[in-house]
Amino acid sequence: MQYNTVITGTGSFIPSLVKTNRDFAAHDFYDEQQNHINQPPALVAQKFQQITGIEERRYASCELNSSDLALNAAREAIRDSGVDPETIDQIIVAHNFGNVVKHTIQTDLVPSIASRVKHGLDIRNSACVPYDILFGCPGWLQGLIQADAFIKAGVAKKCLVIGTETLSRVIDAYDRDSMIFSDGAGACVVEALPKNGSNQGVLASSVLNHSNEEAYFLYMGKSNFPGSDTRVRYLKMQGRKVFEYAMKHVPSAMKACLDKCGIDISEVKKIFLHQANEKMDEGFTRELFKLYGHKTIPPHIMPMSIHKLGNSSVATIPTLFDLVRKGELPDQELHAGDVILFASVGAGMNINAVCYRI
Amino acid sequence: MQYNTVITGTGSFIPSLVKTNRDFAAHDFYDEQQNHINQPPALVAQKFQQITGIEERRYASCELNSSDLALNAAREAIRDSGVDPETIDQIIVAHNFGNVVKHTIQTDLVPSIASRVKHGLDIRNSACVPYDILFGCPGWLQGLIQADAFIKAGVAKKCLVIGTETLSRVIDAYDRDSMIFSDGAGACVVEALPKNGSNQGVLASSVLNHSNEEAYFLYMGKSNFPGSDTRVRYLKMQGRKVFEYAMKHVPSAMKACLDKCGIDISEVKKIFLHQANEKMDEGFTRELFKLYGHKTIPPHIMPMSIHKLGNSSVATIPTLFDLVRKGELPDQELHAGDVILFASVGAGMNINAVCYRI
Repeated sequence: MQYNTVITGTGSFIPSLVKTNRDFAAHDFYDEQQNHINQPPALVAQKFQQITGIEERRYASCELNSSDLALNAAREAIRDSGVDPETIDQIIVAHNFGNVVKHTIQTDLVPSIASRVKHGLDIRNSACVPYDILFGCPGWLQGLIQADAFIKAGVAKKCLVIGTETLSRVIDAYDRDSMIFSDGAGACVVEALPKNGSNQGVLASSVLNHSNEEAYFLYMGKSNFPGSDTRVRYLKMQGRKVFEYAMKHVPSAMKACLDKCGIDISEVKKIFLHQANEKMDEGFTRELFKLYGHKTIPPHIMPMSIHKLGNSSVATIPTLFDLVRKGELPDQELHAGDVILFASVGAGMNINAVCYRI
Repeated sequence: MQYNTVITGTGSFIPSLVKTNRDFAAHDFYDEQQNHINQPPALVAQKFQQITGIEERRYASCELNSSDLALNAAREAIRDSGVDPETIDQIIVAHNFGNVVKHTIQTDLVPSIASRVKHGLDIRNSACVPYDILFGCPGWLQGLIQADAFIKAGVAKKCLVIGTETLSRVIDAYDRDSMIFSDGAGACVVEALPKNGSNQGVLASSVLNHSNEEAYFLYMGKSNFPGSDTRVRYLKMQGRKVFEYAMKHVPSAMKACLDKCGIDISEVKKIFLHQANEKMDEGFTRELFKLYGHKTIPPHIMPMSIHKLGNSSVATIPTLFDLVRKGELPDQELHAGDVILFASVGAGMNINAVCYRI
């Protein structure tokens, strides 16, 4: 029998602590050369908002770790799908930092975050395989692509795919770029459903990686603060290079994915993009439509969560999809049969896209 | 066309620094309750050797990180296979700690270790997808199982599967159990070769996970030294529980794998086991043969590297396989057509096995 790879449930965990741009007015910013930025921090934050669209972001409260966020999102996705947790074949957790306890710098990855989620879900089925994948911000989408491969290979029928991250614990408070990052978790249950003439589910995927001069566009580096301990490293970004790289490759990667399944852009109802920069996402979509000779973009095609949630790495797309799926974003809804496109870009540098029919 | 998943090349990197049991005579050991162990350290090390079989282990020199070890093993595996690196579809790197720079406690996972390996190999092909998998000690074997799934799903034709770890940087010098652990990397190139009537390659695999009361049998915990900083965590093991768990589940997991491909134990020429404890490995093999009603074990069926290399986690099995494949272990050789079995157990708790025909 042939199967479609179908998302039957979604869930997300949006941490409760709201950090607004105004909160950064109390910060002291330095540039990469460790020179003090003499503009008032409030002005720095205002400019930041103009460029990225980010007004506020969420941080996990101190008692929660990445695996806790993941567990909450997973519980909701399982409830939403109605799947019996004991029937899940694979638990795939994407992240890039594991559990970083608040006010420490160490990563805790033993046992894996996926094992902790399985533990928290109290799944007794020993055939349920939990593992973690590290793939930069596109990790959740890559987990979905791997789940699809396992279903195609006959290795799995039901997968739980989670993205979870507490970026607030790995950022440099003295670096303006840190205002981009936030915490969160998103999850989905993916099932192999018999085709029976339906073409629901994953239609195609595409993946790109550039690891030459691009490999360290995102990296772990020392603080911008001159007096800092140089052995302690923080998540750092060569912002301009990331932007140029993404603008060059993401639109064509999305088109390659659509071409694989023979879908024209006019059939695409929604594009779920990784949320790192509002202007960049608008650029991706404009360029994608340009590749098909379209000068304008249909309204509401691009749901956005960046204004309130910032960039929560691997959690961004599953959280955004969950919000739209459940009608929690204004002017955004999904209908059975809709073709949608997911696309992400991040550390690696990695880009991926999935074309999907609701 | 149908394909077999065949290992066409192997490589390993065995670090140059030899740490003998005698070197531990200068240590001061404490138990988990932070009580000083009053036996002379030399005696502690001697008892340790009697139980585990470990005489010495290897540590990476301070200028090398886990990604460097991985790159060296990868280069050798590529050379051995003769594959053009630009034709590799997936680079799968198993580890559990990422890069931990000597004398620091932070993990560096951005970019992923797989991206760093691709960078080091100077692969320009953007369709080559590098990602990291975290799955405890059985991570390399799980990477092989995933590569097999990708080949079956038509997602990949050639995969590079690497296991790399620098455990010397995450162990507690005051804990006797730390003598088990070592550093290293092992790699293989896996290719989809047309069946053409051949039944070479991966015959079957099985995977088990227990994440209930077993989830934290291996975990990150504080030092045994009473005066230590309690926020700094080290790799810790509930040794007795790990032993009992493994003895209970590993033999039946191996049998389940053989049953899947209809192979009888009498056809198995070699068993490549994760090397954590010599007595435990002998127990696994004895129990496996018992499940088939055999009271004795064929000589040389179980190649062992533990005496000189200790337990290098994900690097153990690919390194051992590489040594035997290249005739570098006494009384051990492989011949075309030989059926072999791989099996591993570790943090998660995870167990996996692969039955393979040379």
